[in-house]
Amino acid sequence: MLTRRQILLGSVAATGAGVAATISGAAAAEEYRKGYAAAELASETKLAKSKTAWSGDHQAGVESHPQAHTNFIALDLKAGITKSDMLRWMVILTDDISRMCNGVAALADPAPELVVGAANLTITVGFGPGVFEKFNLQDQLPAGFAQLPSFAIDELDKKISDGDVLIHVGADDLQLLSHITRNLINDSEYFANLRWLQSGFTQAVGTLPAGTTQRNLMGQVDGTDNPEIGSDDFANRVWISDGPEWAIGGTQLVLRRIKMNLNTWNMLGRTEKEEVIGRHLDSGAPLGKKNERDPIDFEATRADGLQVIPPFAHIRRASAQNPDEIFFRRPFNYQVLDEQAKELESGLLWTAYAKDLTKQYLPVQQRLAKFDLLNKWTTPIGSSVFAIAAGFKPGEVLAEKLFG
Amino acid sequence: MLTRRQILLGSVAATGAGVAATISGAAAAEEYRKGYAAAELASETKLAKSKTAWSGDHQAGVESHPQAHTNFIALDLKAGITKSDMLRWMVILTDDISRMCNGVAALADPAPELVVGAANLTITVGFGPGVFEKFNLQDQLPAGFAQLPSFAIDELDKKISDGDVLIHVGADDLQLLSHITRNLINDSEYFANLRWLQSGFTQAVGTLPAGTTQRNLMGQVDGTDNPEIGSDDFANRVWISDGPEWAIGGTQLVLRRIKMNLNTWNMLGRTEKEEVIGRHLDSGAPLGKKNERDPIDFEATRADGLQVIPPFAHIRRASAQNPDEIFFRRPFNYQVLDEQAKELESGLLWTAYAKDLTKQYLPVQQRLAKFDLLNKWTTPIGSSVFAIAAGFKPGEVLAEKLFG
Ligand code: HEM
Ligand code: HEM
Repeated sequence: MLTRRQILLGSVAATGAGVAATISGAAAAEEYRKGYAAAELASETKLAKSKTAWSGDHQAGVESHPQAHTNFIALDLKAGITKSDMLRWMVILTDDISRMCNGVAALADPAPELVVGAANLTITVGFGPGVFEKFNLQDQLPAGFAQLPSFAIDELDKKISDGDVLIHVGADDLQLLSHITRNLINDSEYFANLRWLQSGFTQAVGTLPAGTTQRNLMGQVDGTDNPEIGSDDFANRVWISDGPEWAIGGTQLVLRRIKMNLNTWNMLGRTEKEEVIGRHLDSGAPLGKKNERDPIDFEATRADGLQVIPPFAHIRRASAQNPDEIFFRRPFNYQVLDEQAKELESGLLWTAYAKDLTKQYLPVQQRLAKFDLLNKWTTPIGSSVFAIAAGFKPGEVLAEKLFG
Repeated sequence: MLTRRQILLGSVAATGAGVAATISGAAAAEEYRKGYAAAELASETKLAKSKTAWSGDHQAGVESHPQAHTNFIALDLKAGITKSDMLRWMVILTDDISRMCNGVAALADPAPELVVGAANLTITVGFGPGVFEKFNLQDQLPAGFAQLPSFAIDELDKKISDGDVLIHVGADDLQLLSHITRNLINDSEYFANLRWLQSGFTQAVGTLPAGTTQRNLMGQVDGTDNPEIGSDDFANRVWISDGPEWAIGGTQLVLRRIKMNLNTWNMLGRTEKEEVIGRHLDSGAPLGKKNERDPIDFEATRADGLQVIPPFAHIRRASAQNPDEIFFRRPFNYQVLDEQAKELESGLLWTAYAKDLTKQYLPVQQRLAKFDLLNKWTTPIGSSVFAIAAGFKPGEVLAEKLFG
């Protein structure tokens, strides 16, 4: 029997850079049919059937509410991989994305019955600075995209930082996500080694009213003050609008793994906790206000003359000091066992998306690194940046303008 | 401000072994109210509101379909812990269970807003053989409960095996589960050290029609031939009906972490895969039958004289050879990053529940260890057994008859 990789590489060879539904070999055809059968089985079940559009000007997985589960997968290119290998890889990923985000098993999926639908699956692909160096593509770097400087607060672990290629997968079902993560890693193994995998979560569909801002594991409403999904403001902040063609409609991502020291944090009282952020814990409203969406009044003072939102508050330090300093945050919670310490490590897989990280994100990060009371209970331990390619339409190949 | 542990130990001291809703200190009262507020917020949302009964003759989390997410938490007793400390710990856990499974934040929960409901939360507590040794409670061992012998197929890692006390938590929301896992570990830290944490999953609510048997990561329907939930057969197989009083209504659990080598497994064709198990991949029906629930015909032969269900098939080897050899399986999938190999480790957190593991489970395991073709692609790497205490009613304390 053909292995999945043989089938994939075979079908890619047969179609060149095309992504028609080419199925090579009887085995593949059988697997493919099973995919549809599985999708039908799921017709009773709403969540499995939910799909997020995968084609268009932008890749999916950025301008949308975080799914319940996410895997950030970083890979490093194998020695000897060429630019045309990269294109072959992107052809495979394009094919995977177009099928799996449609609720259909990937070509030659070894366990197509596991594909019960899409469950809002999104797959987003980006490239670290190393890729541009390796292939001498410096002229293809979008403006403002570069390795981050180091910050005094950082205690970075290389094993959860950097990476050549990011495949970011999100879905509302962890079992589906796990299967698809395996497929994507397998389909990439000819080209790249797995560098790290970081898994995050928000709340399951059916636990919070739609549109509710998620909470992080400190208990705070996290993600309130953010460009609105679907707005012009979002588009202007996030989507790259000029520079190298492959990136127009793309964006830039910084992923920071930020560990929370919940043991010391939870020794604070509620009032102290609220002052550290500058917002109320229950409602998420700015201090001195009632509702989450009430505008922040940074000028307000209390009877005793002190500022309602203290000078050290996270939202004061983080808020834009000029109109450029705005980006889109899409954080996921994570919790893993710290094997050494034999205790839970909890925190955020904190992300920011911006058309120009240097202009929009960097000054804010530098200001927070210099001083933000929240730093007392949080430590960045992983960090990476990726340039996210533009979206693609049926018949097009992801990032073909970069590697073609 | 009082720490959570101070509050808990304080309230326990105040109430002795009682579990009335005792709240000590203004801080605790405030936290407590917040829990109710959070529960109200969730009133729009069905999954968050779903509750599984926590009180009764049996502990929850055994006789029910596996939730989407589960954490098996094993702890080892600290030096110097006494039997009466154990009782104090059980009082705390009883209080935690009665609140949190009701969708209400635990006493002095540091982030009560994270408790958006119960999402079918279950918390099940059991004790490893070491506990009975340490407290000289050998006369309290239920019949047939003992450390397992070693099997030739085992490649056990101590870091994911054994343990004095098991707290098994399941819920349909991973964020809630993560928060509750932290609370339970924190509430136990005076008494025990975390030994391991193993996390499993099945599919999210809303992806499969209710009652669908789950699939494992090999793609098989797994869990078909099992005592039926709610039946007399289930009760007779699973719930301990005589012996030490603390265990009557309890059960015995064996948890095996079984790694799957999916890379080699997926080199098999579908027919070979089906013969290894003895059931069809798509429907889960026994070979030669159409539907999942069709009875297995172990005698049937094919035109060529060979058995339809091969001699090496897992279901043939695993099926009961006498009426005693039946137990309840409740498997969860798992997938983690193997940091050394830099590849995914996938498999089952395979569980069996029986009133007498030695009589019901052991002969089957021995037969499979001797020969089961499936062993070629699976390796047990973790193993532990726990005696699960009887259920408890409001006013009673978990396992008080063992430690009281
Ligand atoms: C574990 C680390 C962090 C936690 C727990 C955290 C938490 C929060 C919370 C609760 C809010 C208020 C609600 C909201 O508007 O979303 C907030 C706002 C914000 N945070 Fe963070 N944050 C963290 C790290 C960061 C980092 C690293 C940055 C940027 C470098 C950042 C930038 C912002 C910005 C820009 C806002 C909105 C401020 C405004 O209202 O103008 N945060 N964060
Ligand atoms: C990774 C390891 C394993 C996998 C993938 C696996 C998979 C399966 C599958 C697909 C079935 C058929 C469907 C069903 O009736 O549930 C089955 C049945 C069964 N398995 Fe396993 N299994 C594993 C380990 C074990 C172990 C360790 C035992 C016992 C020691 C066991 C005992 C049984 C029993 C008793 C049945 C029902 C047999 C019958 O129909 O009478 N399995 N297993």
